[in-house]
Amino acid sequence: MKRTVFFISDGTGITAEALGDSLLAQFEEIEFEKITLPYINTHEKALEAVQSITAAGVNDGLRPILIDTIVNDEIRQILNTCDTLKIDIFSTFIKPLEHEFATKSSYSVGKSHAIVESDRYKDRINSINFALDNDDGARTKQYNEADIILLGVSRCGKTPTCLYMALQFGIRAANYPLTEDDLENNGLPACLEPYKDKLYGLTIDPFQLTAIRHERRPNSRYSSLNQCDTEIRFVERLFASQKISFINTTTFSIEEISTRIMAAKGLQRSLNH
Amino acid sequence: MKRTVFFISDGTGITAEALGDSLLAQFEEIEFEKITLPYINTHEKALEAVQSITAAGVNDGLRPILIDTIVNDEIRQILNTCDTLKIDIFSTFIKPLEHEFATKSSYSVGKSHAIVESDRYKDRINSINFALDNDDGARTKQYNEADIILLGVSRCGKTPTCLYMALQFGIRAANYPLTEDDLENNGLPACLEPYKDKLYGLTIDPFQLTAIRHERRPNSRYSSLNQCDTEIRFVERLFASQKISFINTTTFSIEEISTRIMAAKGLQRSLNH
Repeated sequence: MKRTVFFISDGTGITAEALGDSLLAQFEEIEFEKITLPYINTHEKALEAVQSITAAGVNDGLRPILIDTIVNDEIRQILNTCDTLKIDIFSTFIKPLEHEFATKSSYSVGKSHAIVESDRYKDRINSINFALDNDDGARTKQYNEADIILLGVSRCGKTPTCLYMALQFGIRAANYPLTEDDLENNGLPACLEPYKDKLYGLTIDPFQLTAIRHERRPNSRYSSLNQCDTEIRFVERLFASQKISFINTTTFSIEEISTRIMAAKGLQRSLNH
Repeated sequence: MKRTVFFISDGTGITAEALGDSLLAQFEEIEFEKITLPYINTHEKALEAVQSITAAGVNDGLRPILIDTIVNDEIRQILNTCDTLKIDIFSTFIKPLEHEFATKSSYSVGKSHAIVESDRYKDRINSINFALDNDDGARTKQYNEADIILLGVSRCGKTPTCLYMALQFGIRAANYPLTEDDLENNGLPACLEPYKDKLYGLTIDPFQLTAIRHERRPNSRYSSLNQCDTEIRFVERLFASQKISFINTTTFSIEEISTRIMAAKGLQRSLNH
């Protein structure tokens, strides 16, 4: 049984997708076809959306699900002409909030965004630049400015995690790759000593690591299971001896790795707002 | 009037934040203090959350707002003991979906994630590596594998946009910086000619560009308003003469720039799901 789901927004559609995905994940046995229609912000686009929705309903023989964050009332009414199950975020939740705050909502998407966005934008850009400048141990001079410094062997997930923290939360995240040289010395690299409170370790299942490394350098010593296994043992011993908290990234998404580390280190998620 | 808002989740909290932020943005005149409590997945953590919520209510003299994506019923009931206005996403929307699908939801967070995540993870990692390898014109040999190639002057937003597309949607996005040399030639750089259908331009207000560049290289020719203005004129003329669609990034968030470009180029957002 296939069901078509439309995520519809007069903005990016990212909120509708995030909410919709968490709801639909609760229905494992159903196959969903998911279609995002962002920037439905004119009469014409709304009518086009109605056509797509209607066509999907005819095609499936079952009415589509519509998950929307449309704020504009005219657009909403056009979409309401379709036969769908509506998960209507604004009309459901704005009323109780208006009542609670004893005020009317501005009810016009993006209106108040401009100023906040400009600050947020700058912070995020600076954090992304910081992550890129301080990726893979390229530089260690800026570690005093870092919110966090991730440690781990090559290809364990450091760079994506740093970039996600920067983009989503404006966190200044550096990362330092633990190489064989570091691991043989058995102590912490000297450049990290002054920043022990900023360190957080990543580890990963050796089988997954070997698979990831094979994609980059097939059939090399670097990607061999033996090498991966040795490095992971070393690195986990180092984390233990230096009392560095760490997370095993094997089964986690980038979002989970990032937010778990931030929670563990007490890093604020201020930029999200 | 300050109101405290809690975003509570047994997972990352990102969905609750996204939904909550779009709702609260509709109430411009109210000052919100926003607190995210992720991974509230045990009895003990739920009781700690109750303490924080209760304390905020006493402190504000007004009950807090609770926006949650808690799925576990026991945890939910513990949180329900607080006096709050609840924006309860699952209990509101799961029921109508269960009725529509004539089935019970699995109602246990993250259960079905593992397999999908592993594919998604690999795609995202590969896309991030692609973005990093093909950042700032560093390489042009892989352009045949690109989903999109962004063009623009230095510091107009190319890199953050490419990284966001990779992280959020698994898009392979390269970017090419248009330098003075390119602009003086007045034509398209030769390495871009074969990929005209993948090109998309970025432009930006010269005043904003000069401000951004000043942070990187203060009081340089590079960051002068005159230089920024000249480059932007050139680049917009190039986009026009080569019939390359473009977006002005000045007032948009990274999410908006990315999703608008993807919509314009018809790029699928499959990875989001």
